[in-house]
Amino acid sequence: MKCKVCKDKAEIYLRSHNIALCRKDFIKFYERRVMRSIEKLKMFTRGDKILVAISGGKDSLGLLHLLQKLEYDVTGYYINLGIDGYSDVSQNKVKAFSHSRGILIIIEDIRVAWDSGIGELAKRVRRPPCSLCGMVKRYLMNRAAVKFDVMATGHNQDDETATLLGNLLRWDEGYLARQSPVLKQKGSLKKRVKPLSFITERESAAYALMEGIDYIMEECPLAKRATSLFYKGILNQLEERMPGAKSRFFNGFLEYQKSHPLVEEEEPLVACVRCGYLTTSEVCNFCRLEEKIKH
Amino acid sequence: MKCKVCKDKAEIYLRSHNIALCRKDFIKFYERRVMRSIEKLKMFTRGDKILVAISGGKDSLGLLHLLQKLEYDVTGYYINLGIDGYSDVSQNKVKAFSHSRGILIIIEDIRVAWDSGIGELAKRVRRPPCSLCGMVKRYLMNRAAVKFDVMATGHNQDDETATLLGNLLRWDEGYLARQSPVLKQKGSLKKRVKPLSFITERESAAYALMEGIDYIMEECPLAKRATSLFYKGILNQLEERMPGAKSRFFNGFLEYQKSHPLVEEEEPLVACVRCGYLTTSEVCNFCRLEEKIKH
Repeated sequence: MKCKVCKDKAEIYLRSHNIALCRKDFIKFYERRVMRSIEKLKMFTRGDKILVAISGGKDSLGLLHLLQKLEYDVTGYYINLGIDGYSDVSQNKVKAFSHSRGILIIIEDIRVAWDSGIGELAKRVRRPPCSLCGMVKRYLMNRAAVKFDVMATGHNQDDETATLLGNLLRWDEGYLARQSPVLKQKGSLKKRVKPLSFITERESAAYALMEGIDYIMEECPLAKRATSLFYKGILNQLEERMPGAKSRFFNGFLEYQKSHPLVEEEEPLVACVRCGYLTTSEVCNFCRLEEKIKH
Repeated sequence: MKCKVCKDKAEIYLRSHNIALCRKDFIKFYERRVMRSIEKLKMFTRGDKILVAISGGKDSLGLLHLLQKLEYDVTGYYINLGIDGYSDVSQNKVKAFSHSRGILIIIEDIRVAWDSGIGELAKRVRRPPCSLCGMVKRYLMNRAAVKFDVMATGHNQDDETATLLGNLLRWDEGYLARQSPVLKQKGSLKKRVKPLSFITERESAAYALMEGIDYIMEECPLAKRATSLFYKGILNQLEERMPGAKSRFFNGFLEYQKSHPLVEEEEPLVACVRCGYLTTSEVCNFCRLEEKIKH
């Protein structure tokens, strides 16, 4: 197969776009599409200080790499969640990435404050690890973003489509209303954006490989039975039978959302009496977790 | 396992309701639920003349049987679609059902007018057989319903959920707006209702077996690769992992629809210049098909 642009040998065929591309032209094509999302959806500009949340995986490291290459003002933010045989591997990848590219990455380790990893914490407070992990990461990321203009995450189209399927299966209107590539600033909660919302998992992996990014390939061992992975499997079956189904589903939703603004439950946000974080109750979930752990 | 009601030996366990029931109590439970749908959604009353569209399968024959048992004024309507090795088998089941129960069933055969079955017609006009079949059945059913107050079909919850999934994957707003257990009368198009909307395929099959209904078990040979069957497989995987997922998905949609009336494309309906059937174009799809076949 030949590259559609330069006629050199193609390295990747993109079925839903029906084009084959060589390495150089795939990278251009990929970066142009991410740029277009950033500009069209007014995610951020070159004057903004951007905090990029990274896990050590292809999506977030690829995003940080791309934004630096495009000369945005980026800082990385990594949370070591103390997951045995996993977190230290990902942290090493993140450190090596930071050194080789001269990008500042803030590293936080939850074991410093809590003396244990997320798996053990989940057992102690009897919560599913993925839900606890999500809450803790959201809190720490929002806290770290205070000194920045915007926070970017590496969620790709497969992540977003899996989330959409889950939200629709429950018809969870609040979640459906909030599901968007751009979430506006809300008081002290900084603006959050997902520049890879229209990039597939496969494209993101190809980009990371072609750009020589050394990322952690394993799935988190605590998430092996995660519902999100199950939904991704379901969506892959749909895509296999009907090429383009995933992006039609996700883009169709965003179009629908535009003409039918979904009502977000307007529970007023108040500052947590302990830490000042915006929450809907007196004490935020994070402070309540801290309390539980210390007692 | 024992029947939850009478403690006799249970014959069926309903996972999503978490109850086991004997034959007698399952039949009661099933009929009460269908009755509740009919009454709550004001589908029809004992004063209405009801045309029940039947295929010879468990759902439609089970529905006709149940409505007769509950002393509704019912007539069956069967279309022989001329599908080799299938239509004649189903027609025989329908005839036997009619004789044994003394229910009048109107039988129409498309080969009388067109000299060929739906599979051959589809080839001649180069359309997928399922889409052509749907159009022809809708037309003939609506035409037959003219002398009745309401038309009932045997669509069950699995059918409706598969349709919903397909409509959402394309975010087809017109179809989403029209997807309902009750469609009001619209000019000469009679009211259409689906009394089994909240009954699962498995429950419907169990009811037909327990009530001694001899129905055609095979799937239509032309529909073996049908998208609806593929969607059903996907939804069964979801149900397997998350019991109750299908009914949460479908009921959640109906709740959502109530508070967010979806806008149906209001293309004005006009009478077809050939046959008078309500359509959005000058000549309806059915008359255009007839023309094509005759030329």
